[in-house]
Amino acid sequence: MNITPRAQLLGDLKPLDPSHFAGRAAARDLLAAQKPALPTTAIVVRFEPGARNYWHAHEGGQVLYVIEGAGWVQVRGGAPQRIQVGDAVRAEPGEAHWHGAARSGPLAHIAINVGEARWFEESPAPGD
Amino acid sequence: MNITPRAQLLGDLKPLDPSHFAGRAAARDLLAAQKPALPTTAIVVRFEPGARNYWHAHEGGQVLYVIEGAGWVQVRGGAPQRIQVGDAVRAEPGEAHWHGAARSGPLAHIAINVGEARWFEESPAPGD
Repeated sequence: MNITPRAQLLGDLKPLDPSHFAGRAAARDLLAAQKPALPTTAIVVRFEPGARNYWHAHEGGQVLYVIEGAGWVQVRGGAPQRIQVGDAVRAEPGEAHWHGAARSGPLAHIAINVGEARWFEESPAPGD
Repeated sequence: MNITPRAQLLGDLKPLDPSHFAGRAAARDLLAAQKPALPTTAIVVRFEPGARNYWHAHEGGQVLYVIEGAGWVQVRGGAPQRIQVGDAVRAEPGEAHWHGAARSGPLAHIAINVGEARWFEESPAPGD
């Protein structure tokens, strides 16, 4: 699990191939291509205050980008980590984790899900 | 090409499977799984004012989510359409298009790219 805070996500970008761009553009990788390719979906998810998903893992990992509010992510064996608008999260293939809203308000994120998800037991109640 | 404005992106969501969630959570699809699966990448791209990519098309389509600033997208044969922070854009498989920043400021977006990209000629200079 890796969290790129909002303040860093738009910094330290690599220039893009000038043969395909007019003017200056730069980029940062969030998700590399899978070999072999795995079915990949993207969804917007909105959690009401205190709501979260159960422990789960994605065959090819997952990328989250927070678009509203604040909340938590936790990896099996680690402490909960706070996330907020503009943060990007990378869960590794097979890494059991959960994510959801703080008790004090909603959380919405884009999720890019690579391969099948495996679901486990209920996750702990999040903090504020 | 379909643009979902920021004001709609978090509205009209479908409740998620309660067997995998504690509390209430709802979602909207941005990208369906591919059959057969295509290699999928996700990147953050930041365009300087006036910068844009050349006309191009993605074998399996593309999803954009604007995270900074404002700019333009255009589909071959259509008029340029303005995009801004919080808007989501869906380009269909094989649909030739370009995207980039307004002349007056930068644009950054997340791009989810499905399958190989084909690149064409330079795109027109964007508006303010």
